[in-house]
Amino acid sequence: MVTETDSRKGEHSSAVWVGDGLFTDLYELSMLQAYHAEGMNQEAVFSLSVRQLPPQRNYLIACGLDTVLEHLQRLRFGDADIAYLRSLGHFSESFLDWLHHFRFRGRVRAVPEGTPVFAHEPILEIEAPLPDAQLVETLVMNQIQLQTVLATKAERVVRAAQGRRVLDFAARRMHGIDAAVQGARAFYVGGVDATSNLRAGQRYGIPVAGTMAHSYVQAHASERAAFEAFLATYPETVLLVDTYDTHAAVDCIIDLAHTMGTDFRVRALRLDSGDLVAESQRVRHRLDAAGLNSVQLMASGGLDEHEIARLLGAGAALDGFGVGTSMGVSEDAPHLDIVYKLCAYAGVGRMKLSTGKTVLPGPKQIFRSDSGGRDTHDTIARAHESLPGRPLLATVMDDGRRLGEAPTLDTVRTHTQAALARLPSALRGLSPPEAPYPVHVSAALAAYRRDIAGNIA
Amino acid sequence: MVTETDSRKGEHSSAVWVGDGLFTDLYELSMLQAYHAEGMNQEAVFSLSVRQLPPQRNYLIACGLDTVLEHLQRLRFGDADIAYLRSLGHFSESFLDWLHHFRFRGRVRAVPEGTPVFAHEPILEIEAPLPDAQLVETLVMNQIQLQTVLATKAERVVRAAQGRRVLDFAARRMHGIDAAVQGARAFYVGGVDATSNLRAGQRYGIPVAGTMAHSYVQAHASERAAFEAFLATYPETVLLVDTYDTHAAVDCIIDLAHTMGTDFRVRALRLDSGDLVAESQRVRHRLDAAGLNSVQLMASGGLDEHEIARLLGAGAALDGFGVGTSMGVSEDAPHLDIVYKLCAYAGVGRMKLSTGKTVLPGPKQIFRSDSGGRDTHDTIARAHESLPGRPLLATVMDDGRRLGEAPTLDTVRTHTQAALARLPSALRGLSPPEAPYPVHVSAALAAYRRDIAGNIA
Repeated sequence: MVTETDSRKGEHSSAVWVGDGLFTDLYELSMLQAYHAEGMNQEAVFSLSVRQLPPQRNYLIACGLDTVLEHLQRLRFGDADIAYLRSLGHFSESFLDWLHHFRFRGRVRAVPEGTPVFAHEPILEIEAPLPDAQLVETLVMNQIQLQTVLATKAERVVRAAQGRRVLDFAARRMHGIDAAVQGARAFYVGGVDATSNLRAGQRYGIPVAGTMAHSYVQAHASERAAFEAFLATYPETVLLVDTYDTHAAVDCIIDLAHTMGTDFRVRALRLDSGDLVAESQRVRHRLDAAGLNSVQLMASGGLDEHEIARLLGAGAALDGFGVGTSMGVSEDAPHLDIVYKLCAYAGVGRMKLSTGKTVLPGPKQIFRSDSGGRDTHDTIARAHESLPGRPLLATVMDDGRRLGEAPTLDTVRTHTQAALARLPSALRGLSPPEAPYPVHVSAALAAYRRDIAGNIA
Repeated sequence: MVTETDSRKGEHSSAVWVGDGLFTDLYELSMLQAYHAEGMNQEAVFSLSVRQLPPQRNYLIACGLDTVLEHLQRLRFGDADIAYLRSLGHFSESFLDWLHHFRFRGRVRAVPEGTPVFAHEPILEIEAPLPDAQLVETLVMNQIQLQTVLATKAERVVRAAQGRRVLDFAARRMHGIDAAVQGARAFYVGGVDATSNLRAGQRYGIPVAGTMAHSYVQAHASERAAFEAFLATYPETVLLVDTYDTHAAVDCIIDLAHTMGTDFRVRALRLDSGDLVAESQRVRHRLDAAGLNSVQLMASGGLDEHEIARLLGAGAALDGFGVGTSMGVSEDAPHLDIVYKLCAYAGVGRMKLSTGKTVLPGPKQIFRSDSGGRDTHDTIARAHESLPGRPLLATVMDDGRRLGEAPTLDTVRTHTQAALARLPSALRGLSPPEAPYPVHVSAALAAYRRDIAGNIA
């Protein structure tokens, strides 16, 4: 028994029900019941990978593993879930009883979060009794795709900002609460400095940021009254200056600065509309002329990596960016061609032969090779091979239990930066490289694939 | 006190924490603390609207209101939330105490879910003490955008299918769990027939669908063994036929049909790859020649409204579609230019004047006019006006309490179909109409806007 407050606190810390067995597709349970009836519960290997990169992405940043492990460890079917499934008239009592006692018993091998990955590379592999590995398909794909898409997009935005501060303002235009909370996590992994999203701040310890909206200015009798009232509570804040007329607002702030003297400690002004190049230059000039050189300029409003690159290329006098919608939905590449495919059952490699959709059979490893501190190519190999280069996948869960402590989010973020710094510089532009990063298949894996295909055909 | 099972059941039924006060942006609470210090708690009116339609959308289907009302009614800050906020060193104890006792006290006026809406039209308006109305901005925008984007996209897919069955297979490639569960609801409102997502089925009573994946076939020694085993558990199922070789699979199924005689009750075959026009015609021909005219053909794999229209235009022999990713992220329009703007405070209309971002001041109403059973134009008016046409916004919550029973999801779905049938037919194609649907601003509202702008300037 726990009190309502206790249990609520527990939920509160996640914003989403963690370990929701019923967050799966009906066909998973349909297959599971058939496996149950057939007694098919030998070990299966499923591999999660992306079949091709979106044309606008030179690599992906693997993200979301920690969230997936948390779900897997707590995956349960509650009484109400079983009652619902019974009501469908589709499942036997014996199967429902099995589900009610279900605990995920698998092993998870995965690349560390924050690792750049390429097409066909296994981001994670699950080795588990066939029903366990099949059941979690929907959850694992949904969660890894979400954070991988968003970390990858955010890292492009951060790169475009060339060391200037990037804040996540996206929550309001993201796809639901889970996306916004986990997205803030993924953005932070991708290098964003802080989030406006308090639940994400609380849940993941991400720095939070944010001061005022236009509505605050509008609710007051005048813009000056609004600024004065806000500064009374927050002397070191960021003031939004484009509610009515940016230049009048800046004049008002300069006047306030002169009136307040050393009490004036405003950190920055934020521009949210208009021609951000011309406006930022004019405002910078006005501020500098008034001796307010330490007041920074932030921009927001419809920004993405291309717009930030354009603004900075055109000489905008900006010190930071609040980035929302376009990063929040990864507008130019909102999904991945991500798949979770059976690649072995009962110790035998499996693959399908559907047109254009072949799979690399068996459990696998990625070996990443470097030269002079820069990565040069990857080789996807059979899991037991030992090849030159650093193996990227490590076992992070066994028998449904996480191995070791989860790395802190700051550790993941640092790992990401280090891993990115090793990539060939041709991949680090916003445009596609002349040649893609080379990813080979080992001779042994190629031979195994031929064997398996031959056995099927 | 509730037992863990009870409380867990409660959470389970939502998949997302409902009423999470901390799902908001830091700037909302920064402003609230300032309002708290200034004693600014008179009534504010905020209006939620879309500034312009995505070019690929001729109208939007308003969706998500019921979910928002559920959140608003249960919005709370728990002990752990307050402790977190305290840890930021940014909030006074007096303000934190106020937050800890916070209950949303506002009135909500909104268009019914499933109503087509256009640019600038208020989808909902919140009239509440300023802090209450400001606090919920992030939540309201996030939740209404999500379901409106997805219902609108789904309705295009359903239209393209011309009465054929459309199934939602999108959960695995949507943006998180909240998106997938609420998305299934929005898809159903938009006319999709069933979802693969069991949590959405349980939560919203949506019909569920789904049978087998390629992995099921691959896990068996042969495709025939897989089909036989599956049919033993599910005689009236849908078999997936493209794992290895579609034509061999179809031959195998025809052979099974002959062997099983009247026990053969397979409902449909599913094609998930290849040239779906040619393949569906060939398979249809083979099935008909074998006397299996009643076995339907489903397609899945990379479908959207344009691809479905192309397939049917080219004569594909398909009876239904499983639609995933493109619908799930609304790939061609993943977000809206949605805003939630202060339009009145303390009885006085408010607006900002930022370049290209003006707002219609004051509480508003939409009047929709028709002729001969078809809608002809809308007029956005001041809330107290009485104009020709049907008023679209109704009060659905007062003092933080929902008025009346929520309509069932089937009622919403039926309303949606009826409302769509009244739209000018020029809007119902997949391409943009020659002229957009006319949306006027009433003379009184236009005059009020001039007044307010004059007072600011």
